[in-house]
Amino acid sequence: MVKVGIVGGTGYTGVELLRLLAQHGRADVVAITSRAESGRRVDELFPNLRGHYELTYSEPDVQTLAACDVVFFATPHNVAMNLVPELLDAGTRVVDLSADYRLRDAQLWSRWYGEPHASPQLLSEAVYGLPEVHRERIAAARLVACPGCYPTSVQLGLLPLLSRNLVDTQYLIASCASGASGAGRQARVDNLLSETAGSFKAYGVTGHRHLPEIEQGLSDVAGSLVRMTFVPHLLPIVRGIHATLFARLRPDAPDLQELYRSWYAQEPFVDVLPAGVLPQTRTVCGANRCQIAVTVPQGRDTVVVTATIDNLVKGASGQAVQNMNIMLGLPEDMGLSHPGLLP
Amino acid sequence: MVKVGIVGGTGYTGVELLRLLAQHGRADVVAITSRAESGRRVDELFPNLRGHYELTYSEPDVQTLAACDVVFFATPHNVAMNLVPELLDAGTRVVDLSADYRLRDAQLWSRWYGEPHASPQLLSEAVYGLPEVHRERIAAARLVACPGCYPTSVQLGLLPLLSRNLVDTQYLIASCASGASGAGRQARVDNLLSETAGSFKAYGVTGHRHLPEIEQGLSDVAGSLVRMTFVPHLLPIVRGIHATLFARLRPDAPDLQELYRSWYAQEPFVDVLPAGVLPQTRTVCGANRCQIAVTVPQGRDTVVVTATIDNLVKGASGQAVQNMNIMLGLPEDMGLSHPGLLP
Amino acid sequence: MVKVGIVGGTGYTGVELLRLLAQHGRADVVAITSRAESGRRVDELFPNLRGHYELTYSEPDVQTLAACDVVFFATPHNVAMNLVPELLDAGTRVVDLSADYRLRDAQLWSRWYGEPHASPQLLSEAVYGLPEVHRERIAAARLVACPGCYPTSVQLGLLPLLSRNLVDTQYLIASCASGASGAGRQARVDNLLSETAGSFKAYGVTGHRHLPEIEQGLSDVAGSLVRMTFVPHLLPIVRGIHATLFARLRPDAPDLQELYRSWYAQEPFVDVLPAGVLPQTRTVCGANRCQIAVTVPQGRDTVVVTATIDNLVKGASGQAVQNMNIMLGLPEDMGLSHPGLLP
Amino acid sequence: MVKVGIVGGTGYTGVELLRLLAQHGRADVVAITSRAESGRRVDELFPNLRGHYELTYSEPDVQTLAACDVVFFATPHNVAMNLVPELLDAGTRVVDLSADYRLRDAQLWSRWYGEPHASPQLLSEAVYGLPEVHRERIAAARLVACPGCYPTSVQLGLLPLLSRNLVDTQYLIASCASGASGAGRQARVDNLLSETAGSFKAYGVTGHRHLPEIEQGLSDVAGSLVRMTFVPHLLPIVRGIHATLFARLRPDAPDLQELYRSWYAQEPFVDVLPAGVLPQTRTVCGANRCQIAVTVPQGRDTVVVTATIDNLVKGASGQAVQNMNIMLGLPEDMGLSHPGLLP
Repeated sequence: MVKVGIVGGTGYTGVELLRLLAQHGRADVVAITSRAESGRRVDELFPNLRGHYELTYSEPDVQTLAACDVVFFATPHNVAMNLVPELLDAGTRVVDLSADYRLRDAQLWSRWYGEPHASPQLLSEAVYGLPEVHRERIAAARLVACPGCYPTSVQLGLLPLLSRNLVDTQYLIASCASGASGAGRQARVDNLLSETAGSFKAYGVTGHRHLPEIEQGLSDVAGSLVRMTFVPHLLPIVRGIHATLFARLRPDAPDLQELYRSWYAQEPFVDVLPAGVLPQTRTVCGANRCQIAVTVPQGRDTVVVTATIDNLVKGASGQAVQNMNIMLGLPEDMGLSHPGLLP
Repeated sequence: MVKVGIVGGTGYTGVELLRLLAQHGRADVVAITSRAESGRRVDELFPNLRGHYELTYSEPDVQTLAACDVVFFATPHNVAMNLVPELLDAGTRVVDLSADYRLRDAQLWSRWYGEPHASPQLLSEAVYGLPEVHRERIAAARLVACPGCYPTSVQLGLLPLLSRNLVDTQYLIASCASGASGAGRQARVDNLLSETAGSFKAYGVTGHRHLPEIEQGLSDVAGSLVRMTFVPHLLPIVRGIHATLFARLRPDAPDLQELYRSWYAQEPFVDVLPAGVLPQTRTVCGANRCQIAVTVPQGRDTVVVTATIDNLVKGASGQAVQNMNIMLGLPEDMGLSHPGLLP
Repeated sequence: MVKVGIVGGTGYTGVELLRLLAQHGRADVVAITSRAESGRRVDELFPNLRGHYELTYSEPDVQTLAACDVVFFATPHNVAMNLVPELLDAGTRVVDLSADYRLRDAQLWSRWYGEPHASPQLLSEAVYGLPEVHRERIAAARLVACPGCYPTSVQLGLLPLLSRNLVDTQYLIASCASGASGAGRQARVDNLLSETAGSFKAYGVTGHRHLPEIEQGLSDVAGSLVRMTFVPHLLPIVRGIHATLFARLRPDAPDLQELYRSWYAQEPFVDVLPAGVLPQTRTVCGANRCQIAVTVPQGRDTVVVTATIDNLVKGASGQAVQNMNIMLGLPEDMGLSHPGLLP
Repeated sequence: MVKVGIVGGTGYTGVELLRLLAQHGRADVVAITSRAESGRRVDELFPNLRGHYELTYSEPDVQTLAACDVVFFATPHNVAMNLVPELLDAGTRVVDLSADYRLRDAQLWSRWYGEPHASPQLLSEAVYGLPEVHRERIAAARLVACPGCYPTSVQLGLLPLLSRNLVDTQYLIASCASGASGAGRQARVDNLLSETAGSFKAYGVTGHRHLPEIEQGLSDVAGSLVRMTFVPHLLPIVRGIHATLFARLRPDAPDLQELYRSWYAQEPFVDVLPAGVLPQTRTVCGANRCQIAVTVPQGRDTVVVTATIDNLVKGASGQAVQNMNIMLGLPEDMGLSHPGLLP
């Protein structure tokens, strides 16, 4: 059994890790930390876990965590970057679900997160945990930086187009929408049901922290700097990311349906839908899966890609488990093979 | 492997059977029927199943079904009662999720369902599939009638009180609420999102078909005829049943928290919550579980039991798989041990 | 024009008062207070009010408020009881939407609210603002205590039965459900969309503060002490209260449909539905209206009354305006005559 | 009083017309037609209207309608175009909420609606009912074609940019989302709560009927043919349209916040929000209002406009009443001045 530690287990990505690892078969969660809830049973906070865990939250303690084979950070940014160096030194593998190691450029990171990076020396070592791009490097990594939820959907949606240099990279547009669980389990008026139910809005239009991450990833595959306009929206639902992506096609583009189908044919968790079928957030709810459709409306020169994931699964904890599986040489879909919940 | 057939697989209990059986490990769905969708792939209708099944809907055919070890009826009432006799004759076991065999009294059935029963000779043989009451008889049964969703929650909620004769059986009250998936996948104006979202209403106050089923089951355990006032409500959510049950306590009732705890201590799918904790529909979403709390407000003479299930799992398809497991001598929780989806 | 002041205008009952008074025609809101938002424009907090008000929140100031003809308290409990004496002394009329003056018994109040009452001398003077019971006293009142949202629906639902002594008053049951706006505009994890959407739960089963208020009101009309079991539930919607009320009928009850119809025939804001039609929360959304249905299932001995209101309108701010209209001799429906929003 | 007729009053735009006209003060609805519901009271179908109308649905009858001063068509397309000629001949003014007269080109209409136009001779006379563009022509019109809901939000959002020639007109992008009431009150599985709640999806990506209407309107103000990629999405809410619009700025664009502010300064129903504030669908719910924000993320070359309306009000019935007011010389905001419902 793999000994697993979870730092910051009171948020939604924490409980989702526990849900997925309960079905994993090879993972044994031996420590879960929370300063605020130390001493409280996990299933008291999350009654869906009753009968599945006897775990109790503990104060974060490096020694305990270092004894794990893998430690997940399910924390806000600015926690992992302070603890990870010690864990790596102790030989522990780390999967960081936060933003701390997603950007390679420490100054760019500081500009978007408003403080210096605490362990910039690890930024070049950290592997960006999008298996569809970096599977081999993940297998060899000590430290994996799990992609954000929006970046996962946007990059998977545009990967074939940019890798093959089929679109104008200076005018990419991503109009995305997320369920409220993406905002975390924080007490904020803006996220009350009474403030969000029955409504829809854009937010962060002037600049969202996922933008530099997306542009970094897409520039890598395009081989040159890309430029994207990214507008996130808040959906009055709990789970789900929907990305609607627009790009201007260069002349003589190939059959895009076939391109996408073949590009992802071997990927266990990317599902290119048949022509004419569009993804919904509900068709991937609870599953570690990205569903994608590609369309060129009216045969004009703009391609529209729509992609959906569950922000807590393929957009966070599921992808984290997928990364763990790859790092440890386990079957990549271990604990992740169940269908989504529909309806 | 167990060869499984499903009659009527285009509704919500059908797709839920497929979701659960995909994780079962011992079940192989070899036939799924639908007159309307014959020839269409199952995962075309339900894209969450892509990659999990290669199945195609077929016309119902007794010979094909009779070759199965178990056949589930995920149909409206009035289908199973016409097909089941032939299947039983062929040696096939049947788990009927519809109402056809839930009432033992054919005349009572006719009164509530408005037509004669087509195979009344089987009513006394059919075992009511509430394992918490009839586990042994289910193990020996050829034909199991799965309880309705409301009846499951109401009976599990009241079982200890009535078995122990602790309440006035002539004035039981059940104020229950169901998610919209309980109304099925039928095109009806009343069930449109625009007619139900953001709203709540009672329905069927003058008489709901689950009432005689509840009264039959509770009378059995009470040992005398009970009388219930049952008011169902429609929730603007997809999944979930919440039962709020009221009964007048006889004097000298024992510690009810302890009664409930011990009553269900060995039950794998009934979870009595600690004193002071109340169940929510979301804490059982997607799981084959009933969560229960028992309270005596202000120490007066009225006991309040609240119980939640997922109407499609413990209220239908999960319970059906549980029954199948019992009938076939498989571990009772096979395919049913995953935690619910929260948030 | 009537000069109106509002104390505590940043919550949902505050913004609802502003919405209703914008259409009133005779009311001029001259002051709205909030310590936290002092100096901020009202329409900055509530953009639906842009173009309707130039108001800015101010620090609460007795002198300014005392210059108003009417002051509404849209505050949590424990604010009004400290300020009202001075306002009354200054000749200002007060409509208190909080719980401070709803109970006549100061000790009972203290037991439920956990502190001494600050102005118990006013409890006997305060008139309980349910116009359907106390219209004449309201017309003469200086201080009106607006009923809670649950108590409004429960009392209007049971009034005819208890006034006519038709039911067992020792075993009344109220199974009620409220939209999340009833919990106010407070930052609490429990009220996040991610914690409530798609779910339903009971709460406060051991004792909710609206219980003594309901029992006081019903005892008054019954002429003897009544006893109720009251279970509130949280709905994943913004607005709406649904009350499902159960009572055991005494023998020889009259035609209840006709009783209800005639009882409320002259009431402008209570709408008894035709036999067979049940109220929904959406059919009263945004309107100052209570819709009621009365049923005796299967002709047995239990009567079921279902009643709906919009908790922010007839359950709070609409009823407050109705009380103001009565106190000032204005037409009772002034500013309250618009239909609800459906769908 | 203005005598008003409504053709097709059983859908959501029909009941919304009734809601708004109940508060209008000068309108008297004398006829409302429905073949399916003929003889049934309007408030039986829509209980929010109880006490506001004594109307009963009648069979459509030209003579009765022709006796009205104004007739609204709240019908699917293909009804108005057959009845309008007779009504105009009789001197009745017509406000058509359907698509029948929105496109000036009969062949374009036929291509998108799949049948010949029944009264093409009226297409050039019909005035497109977007008051912010065509107010004067509306005042003189016999026949007004009310814009679709998406087209209203998209055109109001882009009007200043295109009128002033500030963006590349060949690569406009509209990523829009609508509440489910936009799909009408039709019994379809796809619009069930169980199929849509908690989910989000794009639809009609290959071509939506509102596209040619948008391109026609925008081309008119731009003075040249524009080209738009339009992707609509379905929101799991009842009311609301959110348009997220992207365009590539030409060099040397002026201050866009100031441009928008001044452009709409005199418009009663278009509300340009202060810089930094983004519209939400809930901030316009129930109100005849479009709220708009304009942003240039990171000061790059792409402008993002977000705009919200209530699809049933400014996107349909409210705009229809606004058009009626203009046609009849009434104050433009008569019956439309109430604030939206928030929360």
